[in-house]
Amino acid sequence: MNDETTYHMTPDQFRRHGRAVVDWIARYMQQIEQYPVLSQVKPGEIRRRLPASPPVKGEPFEAMMRDLDEIILPGITHWQSPSFFGFFPANASGPSILGELLSAGLGIQGMLWATSPACTELETHVLDWLVDMLELPQHFKSTTAGGGVIQDTASSATLCALLTARERATDFTSNQRGVDRPLIAYASNQAHSSVEKSVKIAGLGRENLRLIEVDEQYAMRPDALEAAIKEDKAAGRIPCFVCATVGTTSSNAIDPLRRIGEICQRHGVWLHVDAAMSGTAALCPEFRFIHDGLQLADSYCFNPHKWMFTNFDCDCFWVADRAALINTLSVQPEYLKNPAGGSGGGEVFDYRDWHIPLGRRFRALKLWFVIRHYGIVGLQHHIREHVKLAQEFASWVQADERFELAVKPPLNLVCFRHRGGDEINQKIMDRVNRSGKLFLTHTRLDDMLTLRFCVGQTHTQRRHVEQAWACIQATL
Amino acid sequence: MNDETTYHMTPDQFRRHGRAVVDWIARYMQQIEQYPVLSQVKPGEIRRRLPASPPVKGEPFEAMMRDLDEIILPGITHWQSPSFFGFFPANASGPSILGELLSAGLGIQGMLWATSPACTELETHVLDWLVDMLELPQHFKSTTAGGGVIQDTASSATLCALLTARERATDFTSNQRGVDRPLIAYASNQAHSSVEKSVKIAGLGRENLRLIEVDEQYAMRPDALEAAIKEDKAAGRIPCFVCATVGTTSSNAIDPLRRIGEICQRHGVWLHVDAAMSGTAALCPEFRFIHDGLQLADSYCFNPHKWMFTNFDCDCFWVADRAALINTLSVQPEYLKNPAGGSGGGEVFDYRDWHIPLGRRFRALKLWFVIRHYGIVGLQHHIREHVKLAQEFASWVQADERFELAVKPPLNLVCFRHRGGDEINQKIMDRVNRSGKLFLTHTRLDDMLTLRFCVGQTHTQRRHVEQAWACIQATL
Repeated sequence: MNDETTYHMTPDQFRRHGRAVVDWIARYMQQIEQYPVLSQVKPGEIRRRLPASPPVKGEPFEAMMRDLDEIILPGITHWQSPSFFGFFPANASGPSILGELLSAGLGIQGMLWATSPACTELETHVLDWLVDMLELPQHFKSTTAGGGVIQDTASSATLCALLTARERATDFTSNQRGVDRPLIAYASNQAHSSVEKSVKIAGLGRENLRLIEVDEQYAMRPDALEAAIKEDKAAGRIPCFVCATVGTTSSNAIDPLRRIGEICQRHGVWLHVDAAMSGTAALCPEFRFIHDGLQLADSYCFNPHKWMFTNFDCDCFWVADRAALINTLSVQPEYLKNPAGGSGGGEVFDYRDWHIPLGRRFRALKLWFVIRHYGIVGLQHHIREHVKLAQEFASWVQADERFELAVKPPLNLVCFRHRGGDEINQKIMDRVNRSGKLFLTHTRLDDMLTLRFCVGQTHTQRRHVEQAWACIQATL
Repeated sequence: MNDETTYHMTPDQFRRHGRAVVDWIARYMQQIEQYPVLSQVKPGEIRRRLPASPPVKGEPFEAMMRDLDEIILPGITHWQSPSFFGFFPANASGPSILGELLSAGLGIQGMLWATSPACTELETHVLDWLVDMLELPQHFKSTTAGGGVIQDTASSATLCALLTARERATDFTSNQRGVDRPLIAYASNQAHSSVEKSVKIAGLGRENLRLIEVDEQYAMRPDALEAAIKEDKAAGRIPCFVCATVGTTSSNAIDPLRRIGEICQRHGVWLHVDAAMSGTAALCPEFRFIHDGLQLADSYCFNPHKWMFTNFDCDCFWVADRAALINTLSVQPEYLKNPAGGSGGGEVFDYRDWHIPLGRRFRALKLWFVIRHYGIVGLQHHIREHVKLAQEFASWVQADERFELAVKPPLNLVCFRHRGGDEINQKIMDRVNRSGKLFLTHTRLDDMLTLRFCVGQTHTQRRHVEQAWACIQATL
């Protein structure tokens, strides 16, 4: 290919090494149950095995693959293990991984429509598909005044929603003059930490975030929200943003969107809905109750990179009024001006105005591959399976009088604890995680250490859930 | 593998489809010069070829690959073409693509040390390597009070630097109380649009960003900077942040870091240095003049995903005082508490506190692969080649009396124009881009339309630069 000295990998070498990597991943998929789920290394152990200085001369590809096995793999916590029940899942799948590979191979930038029209148009299209697949409000579609975009994470989506809310509440003057009045944001005291992070980043200040009380299901109390909004208004402060959660991280609580939405409309406050993990459940009609009232929301996000078999990162974010979002985030330097692009007015979008970063890779490809590979029925099948397995696990917990459910699990996350108090629950968690047979994490509910068991990894089957329960019982 | 109904891709299917994708990318690399560099489609053309509804049943993988060729490829602007000279490069390479593939296959989350120790430790280690490779100040190393982290883009790095500067200037009270006083940021009037975007996001307001005049090389004038800082101070405003640029997007101007740094020290202002593309040049000792004075900076970033053969996204960001960054961005909910993690105090880091998103993928893998595949000498070789080719191109421009250089090119970006004015330059650009033979973009310098010719794509050789110049001349 090359008539000059080159250090590049040739296409033929890429073919050879690429096959080796594909085979490595296939083997990893097959052998993953042999590894301890939680990495067993000590802090600093990986670094100490790496050379202090970078290589002066290039190394053969085989050396990297050897070190991957010998140095890196022991330091991996296996999120793709079917016995991973910690945090939220970050499940992946074959079609998604191969979509990501193609995106890396094409290596294009999607910041403007013109910098690769297919990147923008496929993204707009697939996000319109998802509106129908999840039965989201039609006004989130690009064919209306709304539209969807892929963000890296729900944290970034929350920040973009908050910024737009901030601008709308100040007639787009905060962007110009800075935050010059007390703007108030609201979320339940169970909402994700990214709400607090966003409020700090956007210059509102932590003191202007109200963490609203929850009911016995850990869902936001609408009456408490409205009382707080009224109190702030009476004091001359400006309520601008409510973040409701569909499936809190702690306990999967579903905030009552309809009542919250009515309050937001009454008081002219932006409603953002964060359904990071649980939104995926709406693929199945029987779980769509979680979105009741969503038509009252100004923005919404969920993460296919959590529970929809799409490897990280892929958060889908919709707004009802894209012009407000674009007006908030658009900056137009000369070197980015282009005739074909549309900043909201035209037939196509320039997505750099829809999020924080300028550059963006072709993430719609993997999402398109996942949807086409599984089809709606395939996705529904596996989501139903996960919910069923979690509900079964919950029934076993209930049948064992030593344990209790902290809350009735609405979907695929079971929060439970031994009745013996924090110490024994800590011991159970430490022991099962140290065993390497499964991985689960904790939260605190009503100030009690509570174990979280989240079913959502791609290949989790009944036997993994059974093993997990047996392993938990064996610690006692 | 599976004894239940499943819609998943099996490991054997993954092997087969994976090989097909690897072969597709190898073929794409070999055939890329056959495609028009700039996509020739019209707005909406791609979408109109996609089905209105998502598939109910799953489709064979071959159907996706067929549509990739028939629907997606015509909508691609080929950033990996050796005749891509637009914007800044986003160059990729075999080892990087395969590192990304492995990262997708492992599918881990690196938000906490414990969620995959190898992800955090390899990242810390490779960013320490890069401090030596680029001869950056030693106080950016993790073994001091500083440290490095991979961000998605330089836009996000700038935002994180600005937020930390905002907090330092207000004794970390802005995070709590909101932005309650006029905090002022400074950058040259040639700085990247992300500075303005960050100032808006962080709640400072566009009116509190001073765009400082530049000299005849389009570099920031330190005297003008200091005058602006003094004026703001005298008026009771608080200067908090200066962004200096090493290689502006418009014309690759290098701001004088030493003099700017001295001013920042004198006035207690955070200095962030954005070397998004040009930082890579410092791999070669003869180009390290661009970083003269960098030891006075509080933070620094450059993007291996631009010019260092590492596919997007991969921005490397260092701070001298990591505690300030972590204090700015850390939020500690119960469900993320973990014994092994270190929020700056311990031997290891929890990188979620170093950037906006919570989740993060294993991006250090591809960077590690690139450095090991090329070695320092291989990277230096190709960077030198790119600079040499750009300088040759500039000499041809100079030798043609119809053209002029807008500025003497310091590295790999040539800004030039036909002496006949905006109209003819616009015509040249439109014609060459429409020809599909190469792609270049424009800027405005001294209010004159100026063509930008940036050499940095992985496989660009002398013949591509020669062809480009011939094609430009042929438009006249």
